[in-house]
Amino acid sequence: MQFHRSAHAGSLRPTAANKILDMGADPAIISLAAGNPAPEAYPIAAVQDITRRILEEEPLEALQYSVPQGDPSLRRAVTDWMRSRYGCGREFDDCVIVSGAQQGGDLTARILCDPGDIVLCEEPTFLGCLDAFRAAGARLRGVPMQEDGIDVDALEAALREGGPIRFLYTIPNFQNPTGITMSMEKRRRVYELAVQYDILILEDNPYGDLRFRGEALPPIKSLDETGHVIYMGSFSKILAPGVRTGYVLAHRDLIAQYTTLKSACDVHSNILAQKICYRFLTEQDMDAHLAGLAAVYRRKSTLMLDAFDRCFDSRVTRTEPDGGLFVWCTLPEGCDSQPFAASAAEAGVLVVPGAGFMTEPETISRSFRLNYSTPSDEAILRGMEILGRLTHSL
Amino acid sequence: MQFHRSAHAGSLRPTAANKILDMGADPAIISLAAGNPAPEAYPIAAVQDITRRILEEEPLEALQYSVPQGDPSLRRAVTDWMRSRYGCGREFDDCVIVSGAQQGGDLTARILCDPGDIVLCEEPTFLGCLDAFRAAGARLRGVPMQEDGIDVDALEAALREGGPIRFLYTIPNFQNPTGITMSMEKRRRVYELAVQYDILILEDNPYGDLRFRGEALPPIKSLDETGHVIYMGSFSKILAPGVRTGYVLAHRDLIAQYTTLKSACDVHSNILAQKICYRFLTEQDMDAHLAGLAAVYRRKSTLMLDAFDRCFDSRVTRTEPDGGLFVWCTLPEGCDSQPFAASAAEAGVLVVPGAGFMTEPETISRSFRLNYSTPSDEAILRGMEILGRLTHSL
Repeated sequence: MQFHRSAHAGSLRPTAANKILDMGADPAIISLAAGNPAPEAYPIAAVQDITRRILEEEPLEALQYSVPQGDPSLRRAVTDWMRSRYGCGREFDDCVIVSGAQQGGDLTARILCDPGDIVLCEEPTFLGCLDAFRAAGARLRGVPMQEDGIDVDALEAALREGGPIRFLYTIPNFQNPTGITMSMEKRRRVYELAVQYDILILEDNPYGDLRFRGEALPPIKSLDETGHVIYMGSFSKILAPGVRTGYVLAHRDLIAQYTTLKSACDVHSNILAQKICYRFLTEQDMDAHLAGLAAVYRRKSTLMLDAFDRCFDSRVTRTEPDGGLFVWCTLPEGCDSQPFAASAAEAGVLVVPGAGFMTEPETISRSFRLNYSTPSDEAILRGMEILGRLTHSL
Repeated sequence: MQFHRSAHAGSLRPTAANKILDMGADPAIISLAAGNPAPEAYPIAAVQDITRRILEEEPLEALQYSVPQGDPSLRRAVTDWMRSRYGCGREFDDCVIVSGAQQGGDLTARILCDPGDIVLCEEPTFLGCLDAFRAAGARLRGVPMQEDGIDVDALEAALREGGPIRFLYTIPNFQNPTGITMSMEKRRRVYELAVQYDILILEDNPYGDLRFRGEALPPIKSLDETGHVIYMGSFSKILAPGVRTGYVLAHRDLIAQYTTLKSACDVHSNILAQKICYRFLTEQDMDAHLAGLAAVYRRKSTLMLDAFDRCFDSRVTRTEPDGGLFVWCTLPEGCDSQPFAASAAEAGVLVVPGAGFMTEPETISRSFRLNYSTPSDEAILRGMEILGRLTHSL
């Protein structure tokens, strides 16, 4: 079949990382490659009860067309939650409901970027958003990660170099894939640089509520007095990813454009899901719920990190996540994680090699991502043993 | 707030028609401007029962991440339904689940069109898809509608004129906004022309199952032996628009690209909704359900059309829909439906003026769209009386 493919969205290709994620569907394989919440973290009883009540009390409203900007009750609840919990949102801000933060990334790039425009990204970073930015024709420019978050000197150098830079994409908390958290000092510096060079920040915070160690740091958005920060949040990790419900909090002029484009993309997000999120957020004891999630992820991460320390060759290093779902491992100098991941897959364990998280997916990366949320305890232990053995034969 | 807006997606503006649709939220106003299914057409009890069982029997699967191409069971059920009911789908075809046909239109334009590429559209046509095509930077070229569907001579002339034409967008059944159905002869001719000039057809069929008079005609896709037809279907009008669930059936090479882009847009569509659609389609007696819908729309359309004939000035003409949700009215020579719609709104009745459905929204149109599905019987009668009075003072 021959057809004209557009230069960017029509020419997007699945990466090696996408293929590895697809392999995770095979139940015979231990996947440490996923990014799903832990099965035990789903508030199933609450969702059952809430959904039943919605379909009894307001069935038509839950099935009818709704408005592109999102259910007004949910928008209000999200705005309140962002203000009270995070100190985010000022007079000039507004919010739009999107089909998961992934759609937030897609809309952002389409609104802000013409083909050839530049997006600065932490390197490595979340591959889903990299693909969304590529689909819009953006040129990706990576800024290295350090132990306390993005390298702000490299960021400043990139800004000084100039060009049509439209925004910086950052995941300050328990970053995907590294698990790294940006220090408060760097959050301030990143915001200052954005104002100074007049570029926008796209702050993606899907994991912020999954802290299981240490003190929470305020989002960059909480510092925003000028409208330079676009904040994305999601119900995927605190409720369920299948609801595909997230939100963007930003200056109202930006939100107006998101709403117009959202209308042309898919009219609005599933309204039953929005109503489930609304009732969940306003009816549940969220502090208790989040404490429960933290306990799950604390336990599972400890299981994986202890197994790493026990089983892996000592030349392999790892990050120390304080929350979230991921840990980032780095093989010794001269190694390539791509063949390592291939050997691991042959041995029945999936990991995501680092190249997929790079702005240039052909980069050779020594690192790979492990996930401790999705696999069972048994799968974690067995998988880490197998991987550990492979590291000794590097 | 100053920010760089991309040339197309970032510069999309709400049209006058969008604003009128927004005004429909005011309960004091009679809206004949909507496009929602009739409130009495929602199978609420079935959705309540199905949803309860899904959340009891497979709660994790209904809340977890799913795959971009869509729930495999739903994909199979849709493929079977398309084959058995419509004779659509061959060896080379595959399908992808999307968040309503609106997303199908968005993905299609992004995959096939670079900025400046041409999309041929019936004129007038569905404004939502016009906006999706505009967001991708496509140039829209209108082909006039006739009583039996698109003007195929004008279509051939446009094809002969050439340029980077990527696809023809058509709604063959009970078209939005005109209510017109394309004849079988024209369906064949449109397909032949697509093959001859090697362009794709995007066949949008959201209303096809809402026929309340006459014999069903096979979709253009049923003629497709070459892979030139992309078919879009939706659960919005036969189940509920709030589920935001639709599908695209096309050559597998195209579907692979939809799936890759869909993954970058929003990962996948809400999975609970997909499971509701799956059970609905496979468990319900669909023939009986659709017969019930046809009865509702037959009754409501008759109510509106009789009121038109009774109340409207005889110089105003209208179409005669055999199904769907809309009727298209045309004012006498020299009139403009924009000020007419404004007067109607002042008198408390909303209609959508024709300009919004044109490829150039600045066009002066004598026509406007009426909808009989959403308003109550009382609102139809009262609204038509008010509009009728206005037509006499033209």
